[in-house]
Amino acid sequence: MPDTRAFNAQAADWWQTEIIDMRPGEIRYRGYPIEELIGRIGFADMVWLMIRGELPSAAQSALFEAALVSAVDHGPQAPSIAIARMAMTCGSSLNNALASAVNVLDDIHGGAGEQVVELFQSISTSMEAGSGVEEATRQGLADWRELHGKIVPGFGHRFHPIDPRAPRLLALVEAAAERGEVNGRHARIAREVERQLQADKGKPIPLNIDGATAVIYAELDFPAPLARGLFCLSRSVGILAHAWEQQCQGGRNKGPMPKGWLWDYRGHPPRSISTVTESR
Amino acid sequence: MPDTRAFNAQAADWWQTEIIDMRPGEIRYRGYPIEELIGRIGFADMVWLMIRGELPSAAQSALFEAALVSAVDHGPQAPSIAIARMAMTCGSSLNNALASAVNVLDDIHGGAGEQVVELFQSISTSMEAGSGVEEATRQGLADWRELHGKIVPGFGHRFHPIDPRAPRLLALVEAAAERGEVNGRHARIAREVERQLQADKGKPIPLNIDGATAVIYAELDFPAPLARGLFCLSRSVGILAHAWEQQCQGGRNKGPMPKGWLWDYRGHPPRSISTVTESR
Amino acid sequence: MPDTRAFNAQAADWWQTEIIDMRPGEIRYRGYPIEELIGRIGFADMVWLMIRGELPSAAQSALFEAALVSAVDHGPQAPSIAIARMAMTCGSSLNNALASAVNVLDDIHGGAGEQVVELFQSISTSMEAGSGVEEATRQGLADWRELHGKIVPGFGHRFHPIDPRAPRLLALVEAAAERGEVNGRHARIAREVERQLQADKGKPIPLNIDGATAVIYAELDFPAPLARGLFCLSRSVGILAHAWEQQCQGGRNKGPMPKGWLWDYRGHPPRSISTVTESR
Amino acid sequence: MPDTRAFNAQAADWWQTEIIDMRPGEIRYRGYPIEELIGRIGFADMVWLMIRGELPSAAQSALFEAALVSAVDHGPQAPSIAIARMAMTCGSSLNNALASAVNVLDDIHGGAGEQVVELFQSISTSMEAGSGVEEATRQGLADWRELHGKIVPGFGHRFHPIDPRAPRLLALVEAAAERGEVNGRHARIAREVERQLQADKGKPIPLNIDGATAVIYAELDFPAPLARGLFCLSRSVGILAHAWEQQCQGGRNKGPMPKGWLWDYRGHPPRSISTVTESR
Repeated sequence: MPDTRAFNAQAADWWQTEIIDMRPGEIRYRGYPIEELIGRIGFADMVWLMIRGELPSAAQSALFEAALVSAVDHGPQAPSIAIARMAMTCGSSLNNALASAVNVLDDIHGGAGEQVVELFQSISTSMEAGSGVEEATRQGLADWRELHGKIVPGFGHRFHPIDPRAPRLLALVEAAAERGEVNGRHARIAREVERQLQADKGKPIPLNIDGATAVIYAELDFPAPLARGLFCLSRSVGILAHAWEQQCQGGRNKGPMPKGWLWDYRGHPPRSISTVTESR
Repeated sequence: MPDTRAFNAQAADWWQTEIIDMRPGEIRYRGYPIEELIGRIGFADMVWLMIRGELPSAAQSALFEAALVSAVDHGPQAPSIAIARMAMTCGSSLNNALASAVNVLDDIHGGAGEQVVELFQSISTSMEAGSGVEEATRQGLADWRELHGKIVPGFGHRFHPIDPRAPRLLALVEAAAERGEVNGRHARIAREVERQLQADKGKPIPLNIDGATAVIYAELDFPAPLARGLFCLSRSVGILAHAWEQQCQGGRNKGPMPKGWLWDYRGHPPRSISTVTESR
Repeated sequence: MPDTRAFNAQAADWWQTEIIDMRPGEIRYRGYPIEELIGRIGFADMVWLMIRGELPSAAQSALFEAALVSAVDHGPQAPSIAIARMAMTCGSSLNNALASAVNVLDDIHGGAGEQVVELFQSISTSMEAGSGVEEATRQGLADWRELHGKIVPGFGHRFHPIDPRAPRLLALVEAAAERGEVNGRHARIAREVERQLQADKGKPIPLNIDGATAVIYAELDFPAPLARGLFCLSRSVGILAHAWEQQCQGGRNKGPMPKGWLWDYRGHPPRSISTVTESR
Repeated sequence: MPDTRAFNAQAADWWQTEIIDMRPGEIRYRGYPIEELIGRIGFADMVWLMIRGELPSAAQSALFEAALVSAVDHGPQAPSIAIARMAMTCGSSLNNALASAVNVLDDIHGGAGEQVVELFQSISTSMEAGSGVEEATRQGLADWRELHGKIVPGFGHRFHPIDPRAPRLLALVEAAAERGEVNGRHARIAREVERQLQADKGKPIPLNIDGATAVIYAELDFPAPLARGLFCLSRSVGILAHAWEQQCQGGRNKGPMPKGWLWDYRGHPPRSISTVTESR
């Protein structure tokens, strides 16, 4: 049987972290005492520090903040926002509404950014191995479609002919690249994907918000899953705002459609159980 | 510093339970070996055993199963069901859809049963202290309204003039009471609340599903919060069925209303940020 | 602009279902009026009816119930149960605790059953195409490992040398197969996988609870994702029992390990922000 | 039957908002086009704009950002952080881990801030009606204890003798008050509560993080429930960082305590079901 020290160590080892250290009266994030961070760094910089381990440069911070700002909301037609509003009419607290809503930011609703970063990184890897952007993109798109089907995430939008967030974000990246603050390769890849998609389809399939934020997250060297994680953080802002607005509006047990409207039933015609159970 | 045994005990004590005991190769619920329970008791009896610590009598089991069966679904107009269906179109797995949906079975959507049990128990307590059912009910309703407002949970339905589940459940309780299997007092209270509400309002406000299952849970001596917990278990069945049906139907990012329909914007008219930020 | 009828239809079509039909005063599940089901069918049969569309035979019902009963709990060392207990010490209601806990029944914790059904079905398909069970299993295992790595879900347990639930469940299936109630092929596949794993590893890697319930769900023709969904329903029982027990025990903000025990910090040594921010 | 326009309006009215307006190619938050906000306002300002409807002043922004920065993490001993880490070892994606974790930021774990704002506001209301800070605080504390019991939220910490975040936050508020940027009354109230608690208990019960952020949120005129909502946003940062770190570390099905450590069973001694079921 292990001695006390071994037991203690075994327990402590079970949960280990490089993020936070604590002693009574002392809290350090990534080595910095919390009281030095408060009032001195912004909220977005704190997100970066916690995830990355170091503070961002001013240029990194500016792009990062732009990406976080851009994705906060797309209205109550988005499942996440609708869910948060419904939750509040069921008596949920804000934390519960956030949970039910953030939970659905899954592969289709919130995971597109993660997929685009993967796509861009695979193209970027080919370029590092010597391919030109056109060839690398053609290959990357072909590989993607073989694995995942014909929908290329990050491009095209069912509501916006041009997603107003995308050109603005891309312009910020390209300006930063011109100033030498970021490499700019992922912006070039995004433009090339856009060009090839238009050539393939005969109509523009422009960069959307998932694609544009993916450009930024990839330029800033975030691993792909964090594009999803950071989208969740960003969209949490809109979820919170809508949940709170719904609480102020009131309403009880609000379903998706106006009261009195029902769904379409397409199942078995009316029947009775009695004969069934007698014969069992 | 404590010795090893103390450490070990401190750790084990942190989580303690009367529900399950385990050793390698051995699992016991409430003392019974799992392999004896499998194939011998039904699912509803297992729910009872896990929560209550003993197996139900056959009469308890029948009423309990009736309550669990009755509340599984109320269609995609209910927020919980709509949320589960939306979640599946966002790429969620069934466990995630269940989570987002069950989460909103809160005070208003799923908590009514808990409130009704509290109301019935307070009336029952007055009766044990000697009041007649009429007087005890009048007092109970008055106390309830003073604390919680004018809506009496468990009675009335915005869609069903008579909730078809309620009379059937109540009949089962009354038959069991006649056979001496349950006391029947909570059924009498429910009838009396119905009578007084009709007298007060000048129109019927009949028992609904929350009220009827509350009668059963109260007759079976479940603490009030479990009326909510058991409702969650019951509704999980409908949530699972709808989530799975939605997955089979397909659909991506399905919002509450048909594609192309939007919400009503009532906020600030269009404005520009430029003047604002210059003056800051 | 469409006329009223078209609008109405468009709205109703947005949510469509074969599960439930409703009119004021009338609720039908899969065609049956709810008041006929209440008091006449058990809870497990209701689960089957909602998901499958028809009532189970008595033999199907017995196996289904055994599977649901078997997986309700594996103690507070399981993440799902621990999460539910922690949630209650944070002030959550039972519905919230259920949600946070069921949510983590994901690929690794609750999704093994889904994977085993997929594995068994792929082996079964080879057998239907003419392969013997040994050859089909060898191919199925090889394909599985190529796609998913060396861990074969449904076999082996880190705590139980023999999972006491598995032999009991398998015996029930084999008895049902002898009576001609189910085919029994998936039970044979499970035995063959066990045999080959033991031969490969030189030690027994016996069927566990995920594997044994997968045998039942596959024999009963449930699609693979429902093995996960039904596990969630089953484990919800244990989650509810533990959450309720924790609420009765009390406790505030209970973390994973005893109060005063901390995690192991392995990150950046203490540092100050001042020099950094001055140089930025 | 209503005409088309009425139908359309009824549907749109069902979800209404002052937060976001959209047309194809156009997104406005609170009236501002999204492309003007991106790259020009920070993330914290975006949070404020979405919730409050107007941009914050520079002074408001600084305090708001300090509060958001201060509460991001308190280590894996906090239930929320532990839950996020466990979730990742169950195969969850980052959005699911965030959901399960944020969900438990309920009355006890994350709701303290909401309660403190309520307490401070009630004291502040007495002061507006003419009471001095000492008398108003004495009355406010007495009322609180009568309603909610003896624990005063926002003061005292089971781990930190002095919570290092609190004095720093309070100093920022007092400096802002001296510059006339905020009123400062809630800071005075916090100091007075601290003084009276120390006098009552004979030892310091100093302001903690919930109390200190509550001072800021109250000074900035946020309704009490938003203190909880904003805490959720802030703690989401730590949850995300820990979930990601756990994913990088790996681990499967990680329970609360080291592998091999079990809970303490205190329930029914071993028994057999057979005699029971025979007698039923």
